Amino acid sequence: MLDPMRHATPEEAEQAFYRAFERRDLEAMMRVWAEAAHVVCIHPMGERLTGVEAVRRGWAEIFAGGVELAFRLEAVHRVHGPNLAVHVVREVIHVAGEPRPRPPVEATNVYQLERDGWRMILHHASPVGRPRPREARPPLH
Amino acid sequence: MLDPMRHATPEEAEQAFYRAFERRDLEAMMRVWAEAAHVVCIHPMGERLTGVEAVRRGWAEIFAGGVELAFRLEAVHRVHGPNLAVHVVREVIHVAGEPRPRPPVEATNVYQLERDGWRMILHHASPVGRPRPREARPPLH
Repeated sequence: MLDPMRHATPEEAEQAFYRAFERRDLEAMMRVWAEAAHVVCIHPMGERLTGVEAVRRGWAEIFAGGVELAFRLEAVHRVHGPNLAVHVVREVIHVAGEPRPRPPVEATNVYQLERDGWRMILHHASPVGRPRPREARPPLH
Repeated sequence: MLDPMRHATPEEAEQAFYRAFERRDLEAMMRVWAEAAHVVCIHPMGERLTGVEAVRRGWAEIFAGGVELAFRLEAVHRVHGPNLAVHVVREVIHVAGEPRPRPPVEATNVYQLERDGWRMILHHASPVGRPRPREARPPLH
């Protein structure tokens, strides 16, 4: 029988990911991720975190801040294969007590089908729409 | 017969992508990309570009700068499925005339197997390892 904590679709895994993020629930967050050496998490402007232990430490650090966040996803873009699903989402992040959302974050979320359902294997998030630093126009990249 | 411009593996497509980038060759760059509405390109700190025409305009803008770049890829990380391949690479970018490389960029590159070979469908690049802007520690995300 499928573990009811597992996710039948990439969309279910994505919902669980953002719910765990909003609740700052580290165990729920890590149930979304594959328990694998090949998972990768890149927080905005952060170093790449590779492997489940590094990914867990990254979330523990963020959740330790105790800041209440609410996510709205916009412009959800999906490409699905038989065992990999690639989503690009625009995260609009509301911080409790702030009148306006933060500047948006673009996130690439990749899910992999495992025996027990879809798990996250990649979260690459980066700020967008701010002036590019250090470089004159036109940009190099 | 396979078009010799097409790529038998995701690795070949990736090599062609960075070669076209270094040569500022827009036609070669666009031959790497799928000719599809679902392609997505996010340059560092840039807005998401969706669809092949927007992606082309983004590259044209960058190449118009005429700056000579050389890429070295580090920490190449790959997850392959039957028709999708996800690579995370650290781009070390040398600008001609500068003594040291720029701060590194993390890129998620996704390739899709089409009838004529592997094509890029997503390039999401973002700066890393700089101080996080706007936020005190610990980070929100």
